[in-house]
Amino acid sequence: MHAPFELADIAADVLARLRERAPRVHCVTNSVAQQYTANMLLAAGAVPSMTLAPEEIGHFVRGADALLINLGTFDAERRAAVAAALAAAEAGQKPWVLDPVFIERSAPRAEFARELIAHRPAVVRLNHAEFASLSGGGAAADAPQRFAQAAVTVVALTGDADVVTDGDRRAEIANGDALMGLVTAMGCAGSALVAAALAVEADAWLATVAALTAFGVAGEVAAESARGPGTFAVAIIDALYHLDRATLRERARISLAEVSS
Amino acid sequence: MHAPFELADIAADVLARLRERAPRVHCVTNSVAQQYTANMLLAAGAVPSMTLAPEEIGHFVRGADALLINLGTFDAERRAAVAAALAAAEAGQKPWVLDPVFIERSAPRAEFARELIAHRPAVVRLNHAEFASLSGGGAAADAPQRFAQAAVTVVALTGDADVVTDGDRRAEIANGDALMGLVTAMGCAGSALVAAALAVEADAWLATVAALTAFGVAGEVAAESARGPGTFAVAIIDALYHLDRATLRERARISLAEVSS
Amino acid sequence: MHAPFELADIAADVLARLRERAPRVHCVTNSVAQQYTANMLLAAGAVPSMTLAPEEIGHFVRGADALLINLGTFDAERRAAVAAALAAAEAGQKPWVLDPVFIERSAPRAEFARELIAHRPAVVRLNHAEFASLSGGGAAADAPQRFAQAAVTVVALTGDADVVTDGDRRAEIANGDALMGLVTAMGCAGSALVAAALAVEADAWLATVAALTAFGVAGEVAAESARGPGTFAVAIIDALYHLDRATLRERARISLAEVSS
Repeated sequence: MHAPFELADIAADVLARLRERAPRVHCVTNSVAQQYTANMLLAAGAVPSMTLAPEEIGHFVRGADALLINLGTFDAERRAAVAAALAAAEAGQKPWVLDPVFIERSAPRAEFARELIAHRPAVVRLNHAEFASLSGGGAAADAPQRFAQAAVTVVALTGDADVVTDGDRRAEIANGDALMGLVTAMGCAGSALVAAALAVEADAWLATVAALTAFGVAGEVAAESARGPGTFAVAIIDALYHLDRATLRERARISLAEVSS
Repeated sequence: MHAPFELADIAADVLARLRERAPRVHCVTNSVAQQYTANMLLAAGAVPSMTLAPEEIGHFVRGADALLINLGTFDAERRAAVAAALAAAEAGQKPWVLDPVFIERSAPRAEFARELIAHRPAVVRLNHAEFASLSGGGAAADAPQRFAQAAVTVVALTGDADVVTDGDRRAEIANGDALMGLVTAMGCAGSALVAAALAVEADAWLATVAALTAFGVAGEVAAESARGPGTFAVAIIDALYHLDRATLRERARISLAEVSS
Repeated sequence: MHAPFELADIAADVLARLRERAPRVHCVTNSVAQQYTANMLLAAGAVPSMTLAPEEIGHFVRGADALLINLGTFDAERRAAVAAALAAAEAGQKPWVLDPVFIERSAPRAEFARELIAHRPAVVRLNHAEFASLSGGGAAADAPQRFAQAAVTVVALTGDADVVTDGDRRAEIANGDALMGLVTAMGCAGSALVAAALAVEADAWLATVAALTAFGVAGEVAAESARGPGTFAVAIIDALYHLDRATLRERARISLAEVSS
């Protein structure tokens, strides 16, 4: 098992690989988040694409190194895009992340999220309200790892601290800043970073811990110069772009827990 | 009748309620404006949602405290979304704002706006060209209040000064900055703030005066540090987030006029 | 033939005309780029519109001074919008720019781009991968001018240096900054500036040289104050808004070459 201090180094390694390899990440994401997600991926070193057209999304996913499926502004166009993207990802064994945005507000969306989880995303990134909707409301401390075990996925449950578990390993990341909740699509951009990390790190749990640690630390660095959520949204892009190993080592606050299975 | 200086305090009260209650505002808005509108609402303390999918928009509107209908990038998807959103808003007696973007450029859009006004929005927020299209070109000084009386709505006619009238009361707000006209979706974001204010202030005229005053003052504060329209677009988000009672009292320039009916 | 130093002055003239005449530019562009493109056009003095609805796009294009057709996030809605927009542009003899985004990644998109080029855009703005896809892979130094001659268009091939040729004249513009490649929709926004320039300069080659020179110089100015791609994306908007003749004269790096035909 990795020690917490090793995980900061792994986050730095993952960032270095993103910058070196420039993996392609195809994003089926909501119209509110497309621009911000693309800019976050570019700042991390990845190359985003965003098309939803059924006749060409397969081309893009086959050429991509990872896939993000985000259910915000869920509509017929995006449902069709998801089906085509998923088929291409499964055929090409590409890792993919599910971000089931706002499923607690819409029963059809929650149902669709459950169907997608049966297709085994590498990672499900979601907040507490979304997790409660998905898991049937279980708020027990071990609910994430039990869900991860049952669904054979990594659960990344973000909030004041982020919990990342694959059912066997469980990390808590205490980085981040409250301003992250005041910028639209911030969570979506975080999920896209997880997808990018999957493209350069085969261990999905490690990739997720690395991406969310880098994201949270970038948020903390940005908060130091931001004058509000407007400048913060801009500053976190710069902070991620410049994020280095020394800053990650100094700031990462990751704790690990044994998981009884 | 309120004295002008009281209105600055009411604007501060409305902002305080937004920050405390975090009302949900569902937005049927154009694709250009979605991200900026969401960030403006978050900066004001509200919680935006943006989905357009007909099978779930009803869920979102029923859970929302106010609704925005913006006609920019008007298309079949959005027309269907508007119908479903409006049905849910009417069933739930949710207040809603109509922003009839660019109706002067498109006859079908103007016709659709007229149909919507028959459904009695709480507020219609629009610029002079849009108002001329809607009202048949009447440029008389009392045209806004006559339109407000006939349509049983609040008219918020924005320009160098903003006129807000419900047919009985009329306020002019002389705040704002010319840079606001150089940022896309700025007017759309202002309309969204009006919708948010309706969620916490039952008097639609007062809510509109409060929202547009806060918006204009935030614009003035932002202009002081901005180096152009790029930094301005970011700075107004910060300014709204930090806007306080003292600044509103000091800067609000609201004048009231008697309306002869 | 113009001397290189004259071209910086022409860029300043074109900017001055944009600010004075405020031409309307209708954009059929991808959902990732809409907001940023609109803000770039506003900063340059132009007035953007973005609707895609088939029943009203004709109204908008007939009232516009130039048209941009960008194939990013290519879908059925945008294909229909392109057909309607193009019909209106051809009927009204409006100049238009084609930006064949990512055609190297999608065969159907490349095929559609070829059909559009048969309709004679005034300018095709694209990067090297896109040009290779369109021209069948010819990487010879004179490939752009041969393509321009065959297609009776201006080719604007952007990269480390931008090549602009109408088949007879060829300019290379060595301005710009590497951060421009780390902001999504930056190329799309550049193509929109070319469309705006076509609205105020009848010589499409000159208009393109002017727009890309102004864009590249604004990028260099922005890079001086930017702290990363986030602040850069904001700063280039400010820089374009303030760009003046003295800065263009001082910084423009344009070289001209004879074209053997």
